[in-house]
Amino acid sequence: MSKVDSSREANGSEARLSRASVGRLSLYLRRLEGFLRDGLAKVSSSQLGEALGVTDAQVRKDLAYLGHLGQPGIGYPTQDLIAAIRHTLGIDHDWAMVVVGAGNLARALLRYRGFQQQGFRIVGLFDVDPAKVGQKVNGLEIQSPDSLPGVIAATGAELGLLTVPAESAQAAADALVAAGIRGLLNFAPTVLRLPAGVSLVSVDLTVQLEQLAFLVQMGGE
Amino acid sequence: MSKVDSSREANGSEARLSRASVGRLSLYLRRLEGFLRDGLAKVSSSQLGEALGVTDAQVRKDLAYLGHLGQPGIGYPTQDLIAAIRHTLGIDHDWAMVVVGAGNLARALLRYRGFQQQGFRIVGLFDVDPAKVGQKVNGLEIQSPDSLPGVIAATGAELGLLTVPAESAQAAADALVAAGIRGLLNFAPTVLRLPAGVSLVSVDLTVQLEQLAFLVQMGGE
Repeated sequence: MSKVDSSREANGSEARLSRASVGRLSLYLRRLEGFLRDGLAKVSSSQLGEALGVTDAQVRKDLAYLGHLGQPGIGYPTQDLIAAIRHTLGIDHDWAMVVVGAGNLARALLRYRGFQQQGFRIVGLFDVDPAKVGQKVNGLEIQSPDSLPGVIAATGAELGLLTVPAESAQAAADALVAAGIRGLLNFAPTVLRLPAGVSLVSVDLTVQLEQLAFLVQMGGE
Repeated sequence: MSKVDSSREANGSEARLSRASVGRLSLYLRRLEGFLRDGLAKVSSSQLGEALGVTDAQVRKDLAYLGHLGQPGIGYPTQDLIAAIRHTLGIDHDWAMVVVGAGNLARALLRYRGFQQQGFRIVGLFDVDPAKVGQKVNGLEIQSPDSLPGVIAATGAELGLLTVPAESAQAAADALVAAGIRGLLNFAPTVLRLPAGVSLVSVDLTVQLEQLAFLVQMGGE
């Protein structure tokens, strides 16, 4: 079954944790890491909520999924909460990723420090353009997609980042799936068809801009 | 009031149309444009729903916000629905935007065709690095942020794209707001504080990756 970003909130087969909740867990995690750097050993749901513009009740509901971590009037132990969120999200271990499409976006992603900080390592970079193959970007040599199966087998990469133009996206996705990739982060503005068992998150920057245009039009909410 | 992506779904002061619904309207629009290219004059809620992995009921609920466009058993007139969504999202007119931070991500965004297709035009590119000022990227000359107020006044730009490192993001956002920008699309992995009346949509790529890791860990849903 193929799916697109935000579909899981809407259709009948919801996981216990919605995509919106998973997104908030990531944002809580980001904020908690900041609190920890600032020396806060305990945090309250209202501290977390205020930092992210979410109600206390929503914070408590989201965090209840992680187990009984908080105590009324005392709050959540920052470090335990960080560990629980990382475990739930599946980022208490590293993830190896490959990138297909060695353009400007790929270059930006290779330098994006946020990925490494959260344990996402880019271990391969691929492009169909023979003129690019052999060039190095941030220490990674650009390879032909023919090498995908070998690189994925050797590195154990499970995630693929698609930074190709829309018209090449389905073919690149098919090659990644055939090579054993289990999840795709798709930046190409197109709908992808994927087999069951392969997860997809789409980053459609035009959707984000349209959301912004809507908010500005509504008067800057 | 500052806010982050997804906060509007969760807090008490919801607009009539949630961020999730606005996101789906964008996705419907993308699909409808495809249907129109394929020559479909009418579409049903189930055609739209199937294409995006959303239930019919959700599609009808989202589209009801646009007015009485559909007819039971006949469907929605494709062209009218496209026009109605573009009007609701505020993209029945062009938006001018400036980009602050002339790195690889900015270069990728300047070449991103999806923006122009939907009427989002980048009219200015800025960087604090004097070595970059004066260079051209895709025909746009990189300028010093000192020129922001003049460029924004001259072009009528209302949106700003922040592609600076996290530690420079708040200062860049403050400069954009002081120069009259009404909405920010933030790519820097940090929480921004903005005055009332300025809208914010944050694109945190680590959040998207964490969502993907979660889905893969759950067994490829």
